[in-house]
Amino acid sequence: MRATVLHAPRDIRLDDVATPELRLGTDAIVRVVASCICGSDLWPYRGLNAQRDPFRIGHEFVGVVEQVGSDVSTIAPGDFVIAPFTFSDNTCLLCERGVHTSCVNGGIWGNPDQQGHDVDGGQGEIVRVPWADGTLVATPSQPSQEMVAQLLTLSDVFPTGHHAAVSAGVTPGSTVAVVGDGAVGLSAVLAAKRLGAGRIVAMSRHADRQAIARRFGAEEIVAERGTDGAAAVRDIFDGVGADFVLECVGTGDSMKQAMLSARPGGRIGYVGVPHDVELSVPQMFSRNIGLAGGVAPVRSYIEDLLPDVLDGTVTPGDVFDLAVPLDQVADGYRAMDERTAIKTMLTL
Amino acid sequence: MRATVLHAPRDIRLDDVATPELRLGTDAIVRVVASCICGSDLWPYRGLNAQRDPFRIGHEFVGVVEQVGSDVSTIAPGDFVIAPFTFSDNTCLLCERGVHTSCVNGGIWGNPDQQGHDVDGGQGEIVRVPWADGTLVATPSQPSQEMVAQLLTLSDVFPTGHHAAVSAGVTPGSTVAVVGDGAVGLSAVLAAKRLGAGRIVAMSRHADRQAIARRFGAEEIVAERGTDGAAAVRDIFDGVGADFVLECVGTGDSMKQAMLSARPGGRIGYVGVPHDVELSVPQMFSRNIGLAGGVAPVRSYIEDLLPDVLDGTVTPGDVFDLAVPLDQVADGYRAMDERTAIKTMLTL
Repeated sequence: MRATVLHAPRDIRLDDVATPELRLGTDAIVRVVASCICGSDLWPYRGLNAQRDPFRIGHEFVGVVEQVGSDVSTIAPGDFVIAPFTFSDNTCLLCERGVHTSCVNGGIWGNPDQQGHDVDGGQGEIVRVPWADGTLVATPSQPSQEMVAQLLTLSDVFPTGHHAAVSAGVTPGSTVAVVGDGAVGLSAVLAAKRLGAGRIVAMSRHADRQAIARRFGAEEIVAERGTDGAAAVRDIFDGVGADFVLECVGTGDSMKQAMLSARPGGRIGYVGVPHDVELSVPQMFSRNIGLAGGVAPVRSYIEDLLPDVLDGTVTPGDVFDLAVPLDQVADGYRAMDERTAIKTMLTL
Repeated sequence: MRATVLHAPRDIRLDDVATPELRLGTDAIVRVVASCICGSDLWPYRGLNAQRDPFRIGHEFVGVVEQVGSDVSTIAPGDFVIAPFTFSDNTCLLCERGVHTSCVNGGIWGNPDQQGHDVDGGQGEIVRVPWADGTLVATPSQPSQEMVAQLLTLSDVFPTGHHAAVSAGVTPGSTVAVVGDGAVGLSAVLAAKRLGAGRIVAMSRHADRQAIARRFGAEEIVAERGTDGAAAVRDIFDGVGADFVLECVGTGDSMKQAMLSARPGGRIGYVGVPHDVELSVPQMFSRNIGLAGGVAPVRSYIEDLLPDVLDGTVTPGDVFDLAVPLDQVADGYRAMDERTAIKTMLTL
């Protein structure tokens, strides 16, 4: 089968690799219907993370189950399934507490499972899924072509934006500022709106992203960045800042912008994978700014979000503005790297 | 009148100073009935903060109103009042949001108010109280001598422990670890218990403090510190750590201990004034550890906590294990500095 392999920075290829097989009774084999490229994939693509040997990349996919192991009971061949960006047993004491990303049996696509068997990346044709009962969420029926893109967002980007909003503690009627106009930031706007936020400001300099932010529920747009952007947010919100700020970038600059955009007593929900983020604890302390978030436990949110996606209450798939066949995956990366695409879907 | 003045590190005296007078229509003059020494007072006492000129110290007191300005309407001469450790108008948009410590008209005892008039410290005989209607909380009747100590804790230490628990988000039935066995840490145990925590571990090496922690609701005590202490907490809580950790010290070591004591997805409430605290953001991110707290907006909590204090449901005044007359204030500081006293009350 074919799967995406990052050989070196900006050297990304669709390679022929071994077709995955069931290894454990808890496994499933899933034929991928659609996958996508994550903002976090751009870090190794750009050579900004320590680079391993050529590695199998991609962690967001939906597909159809082809085979299941002997211990799998809730997932069956033929099911259309959503795979969260980490696999997990959904039964351990940390999954029970909603932290599936810390599952004691869990792991990440493209890395070996805890039994030492290789696990496929998500940007390929077929994936061996560990802990299939725990990891996968099946839809009640086969989705339409249009719905596939919407469902694909449930593997990462939409629940990640949701995690920012939930971690911050967004309440009905509250004021919210979103730092970051990538697909996660836009998803955070949508999630905050869905949770009942009263007034949302999106921070974005790009007309296409501003338009999606408005469609997702942002009332106002702030185009300035840094201290100027934060000052503009404070001006909008009574001169003191937003109740909740959703930080969806992960740089030192974006976190500073978030801190300065929050009112005293405000909370920041952060989901941007942190790179060189330093926090001024005395400043947080004196202003009572809280910070929560992290790597989103997507599996814990899918069942809550799925009905609103299936009935069209929310359309998180609008973040996809480019779709390319899997064999053009390199073009998909280039478009996201050059920011000509917000988020790229890979079709199979 | 006489008031406590810190002249230089460890040089603390009860000096004759000008008797305060009403300056503004919103002022009150309060004769102090009892005051106390805060763990945070020990930082300048030990010379660990940048030292100003000799300054008026103390920020926790209860007393009886002697005079009120022409604009004061809810506080009257003769009232027994609790003064939170910051003054605030209780009406601005930040007070309305419960962040009285960021009141747009607020300030700190011993520092000038925003009109430039000096404000007395709390460890003295008489205090001019700015924004008396907003700042002071009157009790329904004159308290007994025994109740004075209980009420005095509402000026800082008990609501500060409560702030740690509220900021972390302690829920009924949850697991809690408390780092710090000073008066604030012990108060945090009591506050967590009052909020319904299911199982509380107090971290303490001192028998007298352990005894109070148990009386306040701690089921278990961990005497080890640092990584060993955190490992012991994790062992107690299913090998993963506590749902909520209350950090009541404020050093880099204590924060690390708190971080390692929290389970993935856990929350830390922190109220120890931070000194050299650095946070590992990538570690917080990967484990989904949230952090909230800061300088406690005591005024926002007093009305909630007062009934339970008045009816004896909680006895936060048990943290006082030494009471000295105001003219022995230097002995009171020495006892806390040498940790022979947990918390010193100053009587007048």
